[in-house]
Amino acid sequence: MTILVTGATGFVGQHVVEHLLATDSIRVIATARTEPSAGKTAGLSKVEFVPFDISTDWGDTDLFTYFGKPDAVIHLAWPGLPDYKSLAHIDTYWLQHYRFLTNLITNGLTNLTVTGTCLEYGLQSGCLSEDAPTQPTTAYGLAKDSLRKALELFIKNRTVSFKWVRLFYMFGKGQNPKSLLAQVEAAALRNEPVFNMSKGEQLRDYLPVTDVAKILIQTSLQQRITGIVNCCSGQPISVRALVERFMRENRYTMTLNLGYYPYPDYEPLAFWGDHRKLLNLLSNHD
Amino acid sequence: MTILVTGATGFVGQHVVEHLLATDSIRVIATARTEPSAGKTAGLSKVEFVPFDISTDWGDTDLFTYFGKPDAVIHLAWPGLPDYKSLAHIDTYWLQHYRFLTNLITNGLTNLTVTGTCLEYGLQSGCLSEDAPTQPTTAYGLAKDSLRKALELFIKNRTVSFKWVRLFYMFGKGQNPKSLLAQVEAAALRNEPVFNMSKGEQLRDYLPVTDVAKILIQTSLQQRITGIVNCCSGQPISVRALVERFMRENRYTMTLNLGYYPYPDYEPLAFWGDHRKLLNLLSNHD
Repeated sequence: MTILVTGATGFVGQHVVEHLLATDSIRVIATARTEPSAGKTAGLSKVEFVPFDISTDWGDTDLFTYFGKPDAVIHLAWPGLPDYKSLAHIDTYWLQHYRFLTNLITNGLTNLTVTGTCLEYGLQSGCLSEDAPTQPTTAYGLAKDSLRKALELFIKNRTVSFKWVRLFYMFGKGQNPKSLLAQVEAAALRNEPVFNMSKGEQLRDYLPVTDVAKILIQTSLQQRITGIVNCCSGQPISVRALVERFMRENRYTMTLNLGYYPYPDYEPLAFWGDHRKLLNLLSNHD
Repeated sequence: MTILVTGATGFVGQHVVEHLLATDSIRVIATARTEPSAGKTAGLSKVEFVPFDISTDWGDTDLFTYFGKPDAVIHLAWPGLPDYKSLAHIDTYWLQHYRFLTNLITNGLTNLTVTGTCLEYGLQSGCLSEDAPTQPTTAYGLAKDSLRKALELFIKNRTVSFKWVRLFYMFGKGQNPKSLLAQVEAAALRNEPVFNMSKGEQLRDYLPVTDVAKILIQTSLQQRITGIVNCCSGQPISVRALVERFMRENRYTMTLNLGYYPYPDYEPLAFWGDHRKLLNLLSNHD
């Protein structure tokens, strides 16, 4: 079978491509705005790469045929991150992605996996399950939430296996240099004695990006799976404990300057994903 | 003061213009896609009418100046109704209206009233209050819900009195000929012996459109009022009782053929609005 991966040069995309290459009998087509740079993971050089910019006017092009009629699509592409508050998510990106995905479906795609975000839940605290009403408070969260709801209406009366994989927090190779653990690593490599961070008491739900990649692939491969799936550990961890664990594993010895930064205003202090649906999914195979 | 009314030739718009004319000291500017036809209410002929089509490309036009820098806007315009399921609400209309309204705000509008819909609540039953999470299941409900949420994000850090008036059901002069009471009236005037309808046991929340117009105006005039307001009676009435009351008032003597039509699939059997916020608003004056 053939799987198209969009956003293939991104943090998650590179790992998805890498893991797809390790499976037998799957042909991978990767796409992103521009050809992968030399610094990206080796996986991308081994697959067919079809550059495509979703923000261009593709007119009446049948994108499903353009991408070689893939059996499934894992749609990771989304621009403008990590600026979650930019209104461009709402007034520009979401419609481009809605049109891109509905073009694929209209022209024959029957298996679509799209990544959502825990920011769809907004400021709700505690253990969040997929059936909780979404209440996004960021432009990015609202754009993703609207995209999902619009696609759900679009696929009514169509035979499409549509999965919405709601990402929580991730870490791993290729992560944004501005993300927390990347900054810890960079500071340690610069031999800085102190690392400035928030109080670190906020509880979050983290997965290694390699696990996220495997979950996305397994979700995509199961035609029977539909609807929202939290992509999460189900285990809240304080950000301080996460950093301390990472430092122990890497034998970094900096002092944490806790409380240097305030908490972000768009996240509750404690939330994590209900992972029961995910566990059920992972224990089933087509 | 000057109030711009969009969708002024529509069912609600005509009544809003009519009632605004009855108030002193308010200059009314009315707009709609095309000049009002002769059959519309007399009010429209007494106000300044500025035709404008929101679906056109207005480029960089400052629409706030174009419409004479109104002190307040009552935005009633919305195309494509009553086809609540058309995906055009999502992929076309909502962005046009978002751009239209944010253009006005960017260029100086500080008082905006927009009509929402009880379809934002989706399939939730019972007495629905403004703070219930929305769960639209129709394209129209989703488009309005997304528009409200996007505007809420847009006006953050701006000084705008933004009111979202969620309409429930209405009846009155000028209503859509396909609406229930208009059909009852038409059948009676044709001297039909029998009127086909649904079982009529569904509970709904109805207001005369004249009351809706007054509520919209009073909401618009109060700069302090912001947020969502249910525009409703707070009193559920069965559709059968509504029809029977209307027939009594008009001395129609048809037999009701109950159960001829099925219930619509996009509405719960019983829901009505919590009108406490509205009552509070109506009892306060700036």
